[in-house]
Amino acid sequence: MPVFLDSTDTDFEAAFGALLNAKREDSPDVDAVVAEIIADVRARGDAAVLELTEKFDRLPLDAAGMRFSAEEIDGYCAQVSDEERQALETAAARIRAYHEKQLPRDERWTDDSGAELGWRWTAVSAAGLYVPGGLASYPSSVLMNAIPAKVAGVERLAITVPTPDGVVNPLVMLAAKLSGVDEVYRIGGAQAIAALAYGTETIAPVDKITGPGNAFVAAAKRRVFGKVGIDMIAGPSEILVIADGDNDPDWIALDLMSQAEHDESAQSLLITTDAGFGRAVAEAVEKRLETLERSAIAGGSWRDYGAVITVRDLDEAAALSNRIAPEHLELCVADPDALAEKCTHAGAIFLGQWTPEAIGDYVGGPNHVLPTARSARFSSGLSVMDFVKRTTLARMTPAALKAIGPAAEILATSESLEAHGLSVTARLKKLNG
Amino acid sequence: MPVFLDSTDTDFEAAFGALLNAKREDSPDVDAVVAEIIADVRARGDAAVLELTEKFDRLPLDAAGMRFSAEEIDGYCAQVSDEERQALETAAARIRAYHEKQLPRDERWTDDSGAELGWRWTAVSAAGLYVPGGLASYPSSVLMNAIPAKVAGVERLAITVPTPDGVVNPLVMLAAKLSGVDEVYRIGGAQAIAALAYGTETIAPVDKITGPGNAFVAAAKRRVFGKVGIDMIAGPSEILVIADGDNDPDWIALDLMSQAEHDESAQSLLITTDAGFGRAVAEAVEKRLETLERSAIAGGSWRDYGAVITVRDLDEAAALSNRIAPEHLELCVADPDALAEKCTHAGAIFLGQWTPEAIGDYVGGPNHVLPTARSARFSSGLSVMDFVKRTTLARMTPAALKAIGPAAEILATSESLEAHGLSVTARLKKLNG
Repeated sequence: MPVFLDSTDTDFEAAFGALLNAKREDSPDVDAVVAEIIADVRARGDAAVLELTEKFDRLPLDAAGMRFSAEEIDGYCAQVSDEERQALETAAARIRAYHEKQLPRDERWTDDSGAELGWRWTAVSAAGLYVPGGLASYPSSVLMNAIPAKVAGVERLAITVPTPDGVVNPLVMLAAKLSGVDEVYRIGGAQAIAALAYGTETIAPVDKITGPGNAFVAAAKRRVFGKVGIDMIAGPSEILVIADGDNDPDWIALDLMSQAEHDESAQSLLITTDAGFGRAVAEAVEKRLETLERSAIAGGSWRDYGAVITVRDLDEAAALSNRIAPEHLELCVADPDALAEKCTHAGAIFLGQWTPEAIGDYVGGPNHVLPTARSARFSSGLSVMDFVKRTTLARMTPAALKAIGPAAEILATSESLEAHGLSVTARLKKLNG
Repeated sequence: MPVFLDSTDTDFEAAFGALLNAKREDSPDVDAVVAEIIADVRARGDAAVLELTEKFDRLPLDAAGMRFSAEEIDGYCAQVSDEERQALETAAARIRAYHEKQLPRDERWTDDSGAELGWRWTAVSAAGLYVPGGLASYPSSVLMNAIPAKVAGVERLAITVPTPDGVVNPLVMLAAKLSGVDEVYRIGGAQAIAALAYGTETIAPVDKITGPGNAFVAAAKRRVFGKVGIDMIAGPSEILVIADGDNDPDWIALDLMSQAEHDESAQSLLITTDAGFGRAVAEAVEKRLETLERSAIAGGSWRDYGAVITVRDLDEAAALSNRIAPEHLELCVADPDALAEKCTHAGAIFLGQWTPEAIGDYVGGPNHVLPTARSARFSSGLSVMDFVKRTTLARMTPAALKAIGPAAEILATSESLEAHGLSVTARLKKLNG
């Protein structure tokens, strides 16, 4: 059973604090191993990657075999059922349409001094996307990472996906193809991250690496950060549902289980204004756990990290939600928009009872790569913005330099940066001379 | 003397590659010390911070003395000359005006399926700004970090600035006041970063930490990343000037020196279409170095990392610039806008000979916190965007769920995430009656 809390209990604050600070993830310290792998790939390139792939994925390859050919990709795509193909196409089209609206605008203006100011956005030239192999090889994640990159205008998008024992997921290949991915390599682990960051004879280096992975992949991404850009390092998934009593307990139970089934470290929380409804949801969860395919995982997550919290009113719910800063926030209340206004820290908000979180995982349009572990306090989900960068622009006229240059001279002197000031002084001398 | 390269030389590619990959920074490994300091501050709070402040800054304080009172701040501000005050006010006003244009817009729309989609931006609640003490205590950096945070809507903005031996820079205090900073603490080093990230009895924790610092501060920021957001870890400063022969060599020499004087690890590069002009600039640099206050630093940087590169034409200049991805790019050519179009990787571009880079350091308006070490390939300078985060919004209607829900059910099944699918199925069952 999960924890049951009530905000009117005298020990509520302590219990809620404990819930908030519970460490859900054991991060094994693989940093030393990862450092060695990266150094090896930097030193020996393809040879190192091939050896490590044979060792970890039991897959003997030569350099030419690292990359999937277009024919191979088409062959795998042909194995996908029509039903699945159409579903992936629907998802891709909706994700693309949503992300196209994120493309930022350039700006340029002239201010009172006559100075022209502005900025310009340009795409990252080359990006790499890590796709996990095996069980966690999700075609939906390929769409969610690759489509924003291509919408941003990334010219070269490379995927690495390990294929342990040579097993390939045809849906991942189709998702890559639908997203416009340019290169797909059958490698994984820290060696794939190193190859993307530093390049090998076969794989050209990229400028940015995104995508989920295991502890080795996460440690490798941390290590290559700076040499290339990375997205955030995701923790276990979370959902917070805020629901009043006017909901079907089974729907809410399923929404909670849809996070819990990801991972035993996932966290599913319910905040409700109706204690009886909270109990009914907990009962519905138990019933569903009897038959769910992944009940061991979902049940473990729910038992260890789940909670049902009863509050006095929705304002209190919003205040608690802001302390949790949930990755996914589902608002199953009569006026979800009004409540959303008060919930200022959340990765994604799902408004109303017809919007189960799972819609957002696949076909809603918004990205499903979202900030975990309370990082929605300061960061956002993956978007087109992760694949573009801004260059600021400034152009002084002689008149503008006359107007604002003297202030720069004074501040440069204050900061003892003489050449800074002189670079302005020399020009003003010409203008005033 | 700097390196002189010519793109028509047979060994140019090797020499340019060496220049590109030169490691300019010795990062001392202070990670173990920093880990201890952070653990100490987490365990003992104020007591640890006060001990470390006495040890490193030779400043005995009690908890009440950690924070500057409003009266103390006003006292320091009163010491600033009118001339300096006006210059700081000019800078603050221009930086604020520029950054106000960066505020992102919320979006909300209804698509063909009837689904309502969109996103919403909200400010980070609390931010901390690290300001170095001593020589590198730059009031301009306070403006550049604090104003974007306040424009974004950050409610609580705290500064930490070490005051070794109790020495305070009045201009830093005035910059903080002009920027609307809420709290100023006289602490520094890794202990200040730990206090901002985890909080102490006196200092409430923040959600995001920005600002430059020494190796200890940088290591501490890396360590607290995840618990809080951080800005990038800046490397030594760089400038690339692309100039044709129609410029005053002394102006360009001063622009190069205005980066070189920051730090012996700074890098100043000139690319020119006119070899004779390149030599004239190098001569002008030598002449200026005879008298510059910081000639030891500027001369060291120029000798060790400076370069004058002659190219065939401006297209070649742009191609080299994109490989360098400079932090600062000055375009002193007849049509700087046309050249800027081709220079796609740069932190900030300064257009035309009347726009010395130093203008951008103080009063131009754009931010002077910019991506170094080639990271302009994948990242941007500091902006309002660093202090806001985006929440995606989705609201399905029953009709929208009917239209797109089945695709989600199919993909959930493909990914073996049964509860994901069932959360949609349960709702569709009700709709389909």
